[in-house]
Order: sequence, then structure tokens, then C-alpha cells
Amino acid sequence: MTLREGLLLARAGEAAHPAAVAAFTRLAAAYGTPLYVYDAETIREQARALKAAFAPRFPKLRVRYALKANTNVEIVRLVLSEGLAPEVVSEGEIRAALLAGAGGSDVLFSSSSKSPSEIDFSLEHGVILNVDNLDELAQVSAAAVRLGTTARISFRINPGVDPDTLHQINTGCVESKFGVHLDAGIARKGYETAKALPGLAIAGIHCHIGSQITATDAYEETARKMLAFVRELKEELGIRLSFVDLGGGLGIPFEDGRMVMGPEELAKALKPIWEEEIARLGYEPELWIEPGRFLVAEAGLLVARVNSVKTTPVKTFVNVDAGFNTLMRPALYGARHRVRVVGKTAAPMTLDVAGDVCETGDILAEGRLLPKPEAGDLVVFLDAGAYGFAMASEYNARPLPAEVLVDGDEVRVIRRRGTFEELHRGEPGTSAGG
Amino acid sequence: MTLREGLLLARAGEAAHPAAVAAFTRLAAAYGTPLYVYDAETIREQARALKAAFAPRFPKLRVRYALKANTNVEIVRLVLSEGLAPEVVSEGEIRAALLAGAGGSDVLFSSSSKSPSEIDFSLEHGVILNVDNLDELAQVSAAAVRLGTTARISFRINPGVDPDTLHQINTGCVESKFGVHLDAGIARKGYETAKALPGLAIAGIHCHIGSQITATDAYEETARKMLAFVRELKEELGIRLSFVDLGGGLGIPFEDGRMVMGPEELAKALKPIWEEEIARLGYEPELWIEPGRFLVAEAGLLVARVNSVKTTPVKTFVNVDAGFNTLMRPALYGARHRVRVVGKTAAPMTLDVAGDVCETGDILAEGRLLPKPEAGDLVVFLDAGAYGFAMASEYNARPLPAEVLVDGDEVRVIRRRGTFEELHRGEPGTSAGG
Repeated sequence: MTLREGLLLARAGEAAHPAAVAAFTRLAAAYGTPLYVYDAETIREQARALKAAFAPRFPKLRVRYALKANTNVEIVRLVLSEGLAPEVVSEGEIRAALLAGAGGSDVLFSSSSKSPSEIDFSLEHGVILNVDNLDELAQVSAAAVRLGTTARISFRINPGVDPDTLHQINTGCVESKFGVHLDAGIARKGYETAKALPGLAIAGIHCHIGSQITATDAYEETARKMLAFVRELKEELGIRLSFVDLGGGLGIPFEDGRMVMGPEELAKALKPIWEEEIARLGYEPELWIEPGRFLVAEAGLLVARVNSVKTTPVKTFVNVDAGFNTLMRPALYGARHRVRVVGKTAAPMTLDVAGDVCETGDILAEGRLLPKPEAGDLVVFLDAGAYGFAMASEYNARPLPAEVLVDGDEVRVIRRRGTFEELHRGEPGTSAGG
Repeated sequence: MTLREGLLLARAGEAAHPAAVAAFTRLAAAYGTPLYVYDAETIREQARALKAAFAPRFPKLRVRYALKANTNVEIVRLVLSEGLAPEVVSEGEIRAALLAGAGGSDVLFSSSSKSPSEIDFSLEHGVILNVDNLDELAQVSAAAVRLGTTARISFRINPGVDPDTLHQINTGCVESKFGVHLDAGIARKGYETAKALPGLAIAGIHCHIGSQITATDAYEETARKMLAFVRELKEELGIRLSFVDLGGGLGIPFEDGRMVMGPEELAKALKPIWEEEIARLGYEPELWIEPGRFLVAEAGLLVARVNSVKTTPVKTFVNVDAGFNTLMRPALYGARHRVRVVGKTAAPMTLDVAGDVCETGDILAEGRLLPKPEAGDLVVFLDAGAYGFAMASEYNARPLPAEVLVDGDEVRVIRRRGTFEELHRGEPGTSAGG
């Protein structure tokens, strides 16, 4: 069996299968732990599932990849090779998109807090600026005039929609820091002001109501509100847009046997709304969507090794060599990543998989029914391809993990393991100084 | 006035004072933002306050610095130059202590999850291993025998004490992942086993009940439990210890006008308990304490620049060029850092200071009464010297901030700003690859 088949067996719950054991043993021996492992084919499958659901229903379509989910240039290159375009949140991500081969004018830059140098860098590379607020709009206009260019812009809209997800990643509710509100005429005033200011070309409109959304209703409400506003812009301000970006947020299951909204379901739900509103509007802008997690989360696994196992009067802890510096989501959001113990078939018992960060909150998986491992065994965290490595830090002076990309039976390092020297990069008086 | 005096004015709430404005304007112009600024003299003052409180009361005293609070080698060097010794949680921190000039045998290594290579590295450098559990104990013994050395060890004890602090940083409660429990005879069994295993020299005992503790009662209870157990070890197992480490956790105020337990108060509270129990014990081990935050938190300021300001129907957001990738504590713990707006005297209004990370949860300071700044102004987050830079990440592809050390009117870069190239270090096919 191929390495990939070993990974898929572990994902499916068969981590004691000899092919799964062989795959993780081979990877850990060759590249060490903790290790991020991505399956290239899963990324391709996810990209194709999106296109298969949306392309036939929306002939004017652009699918973007939200780089913040995983910014490794090889991963970005792989996603873009499926015909997707980059959506970014910082100058660093614009640069990552360019390194992966994107053209600057293919990039959409959304951020609620863009620095003057980020605005200049975007304009120099023809990046589309998704404007967050009126203060920023004036800065973009002034920068475009100063640089003798025209800024292609959209506005990020806060539609006042509250999807059923975690507060921290709910970006479309009225309290959110993101975008110009439809309420109180703020968004309309934004477009009016943009029309009047020099150096600006209005290209589109954007919203993003949050991450890890697993039902269609909030999207439907958002699409209706957005398209009604696009009509208002045409009818009252004479503005025609080339694109309507409905954002990302497509969730993944995160649990065995759970079903969540897939791209087919979402595309189907949006189709009649889009057709009805486009007919009223009288022209058809491109529909843009910009998933991140959906494309890369399930492709990624975090492999860690057990350092020790201990039973206290209250709990049994499996102490591994990864922590919230490696995978932040459990500590930050209380997020749940499935765990597989490689090569063990004993009857499951309730275990806490504890990270190696020196904080009580560093429990990577709490109260899970798993076969008890012993020191030296490997454990695998599923769905770690999005917001895994991207959020990793060197806290507790631990070097960053390595990342490898598996394609069939091939495996390639796409980021070598961090080093102890790197921890002190830029510190004078250390070998990594200067 | 000196640069330092400018920093102190801002800390004291006088951020509109010309000397404060001059200080931050000079720092931001020279080193950019976001910028971590540390005041050397504050670190010295904190170290001296600890010694002044404890040394006269406890003649056999060792004060350690918990490096995880701030691992910059220059900061570590400064703290050690005050006569403190290192307490570390990883191989990377052992290496940082060595870089700062410590001897290996001066280092105490505590971690609930030590890897085999960390155990070997510790033994090769004569580091004292603070053992977390019986599984680890057996590994340490085997490694010492294999390497032909003797491991000096202590046990981290879980005393089952619940201090009044945040759950995530409460490390002494019974549910915690840390240490061997006094309950059920587990700790005693640990020492008994250590006596019997080869390659081990029992040196002491350790506990740490949590961080940011602001009252003495939990410490008093812990000291009593620990010293009663030390007596049990002597009387029933014939074990004499050279040290009793009561951990760190001394809090800081985090709010204007708030008073919390200081070292004087803690030393005073511990003194009679120590004397009474030592008299019963019949010998006097060294008392070790190991603060981290107390030494460096207040010395550190995070300086950020305002990118834009916007008013929504619900809130007014000040969007700055730092985020939870720069300062994690508000997003991770709901921690409160005081904020100063530099150079503004307008009547205060309720503002949210929002980070530049593309997540709703990235609010660095919520609902604060502050004079409203405008784009380009500087804001300063106080008490950012501990768990500030140490927890920073490059999430959203933002390079790490710079760190500078102010000493009187001198200022020195102790870590240059991260670069865009560094974001992709180790990625093949980028200029930072290899």
C-alpha cells in the first residue's frame, strides 16, 4: 500500500492497520516529530469538489483560496494549480502568493487593519484592496494619487448576520470589527465616497460571515442582503460591480460520522437566490467565494510522539512532544481535533492528551476514548491542515515543526524542522544574531 | 529627561507628557512598530525587591528566573546578572540559559513532557531534572545509566491546592497535568522508586501552584503541605533534601491603583511556617523560589501604531498594527493589558483596540476609556514584558516584532525585526529555503 493509503486508513479510524503503522513509522523516523503531514490528493479533491459544485451553476465564477489557513508556499502553489486565486490578509501573504506564482492583480487583500506600507505594497503590485472602513478608504485614495496609479477596490461589508459558529471566528455579526455596516447607511456612504475620491476604481463588494459554518441559512440571508445592496448601488448611485464575493467559511466535520454542509449543498442553496436577484439587478457580476479551511484542513495531520504516560488520582495523561505552540486551536478556541493512536488495539479508555507547553491549559485533546499508548508511540491529530502550522509559535523555546507533503507514495519536505539557533534569530551576541 | 523617564511617565498614565511623546516617537521612528520595549532598571528593581524581601528572612535561599516568561538572551543575561539562576521548561530554554552564561548545573528543568533527547541533553550538561511522573523517572534512570552519569533530580509535586487565578494557569489543582500527587501516596512512591533506581541522586522537591497569584493563602497552605511531606520523606524513607522549591507565580497589578501581594508580604507570610516546619524537620534545606512574570512583566511595553479608526453602529474600533500574533494574552486568556494613547489629551471615550489578525477574537483591549487617537498615532500596551514576545507567532504571515532594551537614555536592539524572507525559512523554492 502507498504512504497515502496509510494516512487515509488512520483518518478513517484504522490507525492500528499495518499500512497505517508503516506510514507513520516511516514518516516519524525520516522527519522526526512533531510533524505536519499533508496529503496532496485530498487538497486536489477538495478544490475539485468546490468547482464541481459551483462552476456548473455559476458560469461567472472565481474561487479563491484564503491563504491564512496555510501559508506554506508549496501548499499555496498546489491550490493555485487547481485554478484558484489568492485571497490574503497581509503583505506577507501577498508575498507568499507571488512566490507561489500568482500575479499581483489576481490577489484580493482583505484586512481590517492595513498599514500604510501594506497599502503601498498592494498598489505597487496591482493587488485588489478590499477596503475595511472610510478612514482606510481615504488613505488608499491618497496613496494611489501619490503613486500615480489607480486602486481597484471593493468594500468589505458587515451584513449583520450571525451564523452558528464560535464567537471568535464569527465575523459578520454587528459587533464584529470587520467591514462597513449595511446598517445606518454606512456601506452606502462608503461607495458614495469612493466614487468621489481620486485614484479609486470600484471593482466589487465583499463579505465574510465567519469560519467553520456548517449550515446554509446564514449564507442565504447574507446573499440576499448583499445582492439587494448591489441593486441599491446600481439604482441609486449608478455603480456596476464586476464581482460579488460572498466569502468563505465552509466548515468540515471534525467528528467521525458527522455530516456538515458541503459545497454541493451550499451551491444549490445559493443558486435560486442568485438567479432571482441577478434578474432584478439586470446584470451579472462574477460570483467569488474564498474558502480556506475547506481546502486544506482535512489534508493535514499532526504527528506527535508520546513522551510519557501517567495516571493521577483524577485522570490519565498522555504527554506528547507537541503543544499549543504546535497546534493552537484546542487552547485558543476549545476546538476539537480527533486523535488516533498508531498501532494500538487495546480496549479504549478515557485519556487526556497533554501538550508539552508548561501551562495547565495545554491539553490537546481532553477526555477521549482511546487505546492507551506508551512512551515512544505515535499519536495523530486529524484535520490539522488549516490553522495548524500557520498559528504555530516557538513559545517555550521549541523550534517549529517540519512540514511534509505526501503524494501517493512520494513524500517531500516542504518546510524543514526549525532549529535551536533560529529561536534567537536577530539577537545580537548569539550565533543567529545579525 | 531620559528615554526611561518617558517610558515611566506613560506607565504612570502621563502618556501625553512631552517626554513620553518624545520617547515613543523616537523609539517608533528608529525601530518601527510593533515594538517590544523593556526597561532594564525595572528588571533590576524587581530582582532586588525579591532578594530584599527573602534573603534576610531565609539565609539558605536561591532565587530562580522562569525563562518561559521572556527567553531573549539579553533579558536572561540581565536577570542572571542580579544573582538569579535559571529555571527552564525545554531544551531550547536550557540552551538560552547557557547562551546567557549560566552553567548547566545551575539549571533546573521542569516540564510535564520531556522528550528522550531533552533528557539526554540535560544529563550531558549536568542540569537538575525536575521529574514529572514515574514513567519519566524510569526513563531518566535508564538514560543516566546509559550515559554513565548520575542524574540530580527532584519531583514536581501536585499539592492539590487551588489558588485564585485563571484556570489555564492554575497548575497546582488536582486536575492539573503537572507533577506527582501528594494524594494516594503517589509522590511518596516516586521518592521510594527513585531511591531504588540506579543513576539517580535525589536533590530536592518542587511545586508550582500557578501564575499571577495575588494573595498569600494558597502559598501558605502549599508550604505547609510540602514541608510536612519533606518530614515524611526524612522520617519514613530516610531521605534528606538539599532544596525545597516553592515555585513562582507572584502576580503583578495589571490595573491602575490596584495593590497585589508583593514579595515582602509573601516572604513575611512564609517565614513563620518555614521556621516552625524546619524546627520539626531537624535540618534546613535551601528555599528556592522561581518567579518569571514578576521579574519582567512590568518592564515591558508593546508599542503599536494606529492604522485606522472607525465607528460602527455598535462600537468604535482603533485598528493597530499589532495583533494576537504579537501579544497573545488577551485572546488566549481574556487577559487585560492597560493601554495608553501617546500624546492625546482629549476627553476619554469607550474604544476597542483591535488587532490586525483576521479574526473577530483579535481585540487587544475591549471597551476602554481612552482619548480617541487617529491614524499614525502610537498606543502602548503595559505589562507586556512577560509572555508577550515569548508567545508571539508569525500567524497571518506577519514578521515577528523587534525588541529593544532601554537603560537610562541608552537604547539597544536585543532582537531585530523579523523579515518577510524569514516567514518561509526552511521552505524549498524560496530564498529562505535550505
